[in-house]
Amino acid sequence: MSAVPQSENQILLSLQKDAILHLTLNNGAANALSIGLMTALRDAIIAAGADDSVRVIVIGHVGKVFSAGHDLKELTAKRSDADKGQAFFKQTFDLCAALMVSIVECPKPVIAVINGLATAAGCQLVATCDLAIATDKATFCTPGVNIGLFCSTPMVALTRNIHRKQAMEMLLTGETIEAGDAKDYGLINRIVPEDYLDQVVTKYAATIASKSQLTVKTGKKAFYAQADMGLREAYDHTARVMTENMLAGDACEGIEAFIEKREAKWSDS
Amino acid sequence: MSAVPQSENQILLSLQKDAILHLTLNNGAANALSIGLMTALRDAIIAAGADDSVRVIVIGHVGKVFSAGHDLKELTAKRSDADKGQAFFKQTFDLCAALMVSIVECPKPVIAVINGLATAAGCQLVATCDLAIATDKATFCTPGVNIGLFCSTPMVALTRNIHRKQAMEMLLTGETIEAGDAKDYGLINRIVPEDYLDQVVTKYAATIASKSQLTVKTGKKAFYAQADMGLREAYDHTARVMTENMLAGDACEGIEAFIEKREAKWSDS
Amino acid sequence: MSAVPQSENQILLSLQKDAILHLTLNNGAANALSIGLMTALRDAIIAAGADDSVRVIVIGHVGKVFSAGHDLKELTAKRSDADKGQAFFKQTFDLCAALMVSIVECPKPVIAVINGLATAAGCQLVATCDLAIATDKATFCTPGVNIGLFCSTPMVALTRNIHRKQAMEMLLTGETIEAGDAKDYGLINRIVPEDYLDQVVTKYAATIASKSQLTVKTGKKAFYAQADMGLREAYDHTARVMTENMLAGDACEGIEAFIEKREAKWSDS
Repeated sequence: MSAVPQSENQILLSLQKDAILHLTLNNGAANALSIGLMTALRDAIIAAGADDSVRVIVIGHVGKVFSAGHDLKELTAKRSDADKGQAFFKQTFDLCAALMVSIVECPKPVIAVINGLATAAGCQLVATCDLAIATDKATFCTPGVNIGLFCSTPMVALTRNIHRKQAMEMLLTGETIEAGDAKDYGLINRIVPEDYLDQVVTKYAATIASKSQLTVKTGKKAFYAQADMGLREAYDHTARVMTENMLAGDACEGIEAFIEKREAKWSDS
Repeated sequence: MSAVPQSENQILLSLQKDAILHLTLNNGAANALSIGLMTALRDAIIAAGADDSVRVIVIGHVGKVFSAGHDLKELTAKRSDADKGQAFFKQTFDLCAALMVSIVECPKPVIAVINGLATAAGCQLVATCDLAIATDKATFCTPGVNIGLFCSTPMVALTRNIHRKQAMEMLLTGETIEAGDAKDYGLINRIVPEDYLDQVVTKYAATIASKSQLTVKTGKKAFYAQADMGLREAYDHTARVMTENMLAGDACEGIEAFIEKREAKWSDS
Repeated sequence: MSAVPQSENQILLSLQKDAILHLTLNNGAANALSIGLMTALRDAIIAAGADDSVRVIVIGHVGKVFSAGHDLKELTAKRSDADKGQAFFKQTFDLCAALMVSIVECPKPVIAVINGLATAAGCQLVATCDLAIATDKATFCTPGVNIGLFCSTPMVALTRNIHRKQAMEMLLTGETIEAGDAKDYGLINRIVPEDYLDQVVTKYAATIASKSQLTVKTGKKAFYAQADMGLREAYDHTARVMTENMLAGDACEGIEAFIEKREAKWSDS
């Protein structure tokens, strides 16, 4: 994957710096998750997942809105279809789910960087990413209820990030929460001043990029797998994962380096 | 459902103001969840769920105790039964579970309003409601362990609201937590001064009542359904729900109104 | 179980004071969870679970480290085995999982007391205990990713204690969190000054030890059982548990004592 920036009229900008792939939402003022943007983002994530030169993915945005969710005009335009839009709506929500699952299944950590409003499927995207860094200008909401379209897919990600009462309040009132509440609730990891955002994100991503890629891939996969299991099944599964992990060259090297108090040299770095 | 207040010797007061149904626990100083009160509350919730004039349910209380849980005297009196009370105890705990499930299954949002002590099954009732608003006089505990009767059904709701260590501490020590901790833990949504409680609750409930009832019903049902699913199943389910939701008249109207920057007019308002 | 302290060269010290069993990790500066220490700890927990004189178990540590996790030298030494260590690694991670499950299955509450660093499987041990009390010197991390060995079994316990984003950050960055964050995240219950640690732990454990052992056992078992169930199954299960609990002598005595405003006298105290 080249480090050449794309033209500014692309709805998804892609720029790789060292091992960090920056995917930047650039789809108008609302950064609407249109079919086009969702497809581009999913494809970029799947491609990056298979690209050994990419170790961490950062999803950011141009403008004041991280993403306002689905493209309502695109959806509404299909109401004149013979099926009143049913096939297109299904395509949209299936694609949205597929995009979110592609992030969960991506072997590389995905970090959302939010410096503005993230609503509906945009808020879902934040919740779905493995990690999230925001500025104090970031706000979050799931306001579908205000337009008659409950944020039902967003809540899948939201309720796997924050407690029920807080999720329910966001979903039923449609009201916006500030970055501070989002951090208290567990939706984001860190709040940084806007002026330092790039610097902090770069350092944060670089920290994760410095780890053994095989190890990160192993761990991220196990993380989501065990989350849906009962306790004993989860332990059976992860005990097997750790045994395999121990037999890999990177654990051998990493543990030796730790014991010898030197820096590890990963097979993939 | 009429807006006529009931006589003060009713154990459950019911008063509808506009689309908000206020159910008020009024069963003595402890507001014990006797068979009578649990039956009345469950029946009122089921009836309100089927009543188009009710859009939001508020569960409040008379006096200094939201509810102290089961009626211990009622339970104890049955120890002289031939079966030592077994059938009655089963009836009590099954009814309690049925009451809680009726709240989860009710298509209307249910808000607990707590201005005093909520203990044991009373604390469970708070945890079970979709939302909870409290004053700084509100306190919470699950003290069954102190009387030899572990709060086993309350913990079903409690552990689906707050983290494990905090739930375990409440359950094993039986100690009371303040409203501030309850908010930090995730058990309640908001703390408001007692003097403003009615005003805040009315505004909060009215905000939710102003939404499309069909949309709220769709969303609440999906919320609890997906909570018990694995990730992929949850996405399959909610993508279907959203497609159906899009085809409903209220989403059509709501999205059109949003695009046209006017207020939506719901089919059911 | 006798109250005689063991010699200081034991890797696990065991000292019973009244009904509180203090198990103290004493395995060198790192308190490594070697096969020896994990076996000793698991055996002690299983024995204490069956010992009527023990009502609460406290797991503490000698020195500045609660536990730094697995014994890396012990693991590494087996790389020269014919199978490159596979059988031994499997034994290690299976034993670790069995140790954690023995805590969950132990009918007595287990309290972790942390006055230093808890990392990797050491952090998992804290997360697995029912309750955790720490000083402001306590710190926590899951740094396996730094040595090529992702903390995959630790995350089973960690993700059942704290929200996903915060768990993922600990796992992917390997960075250390302070006691304050650990409390905010839900990983520990209380932070106390080091000078008062023994006093607070003793009082806290004594509070729990004063409850009916049968009741605590019933409740702890139901707690973890219902956590892995869907909502309706969880209510069916716990309603049965409470009915049985009501029929036990301790609930009879406890409720009577409560009604008569006197102290309860448990069958097992």
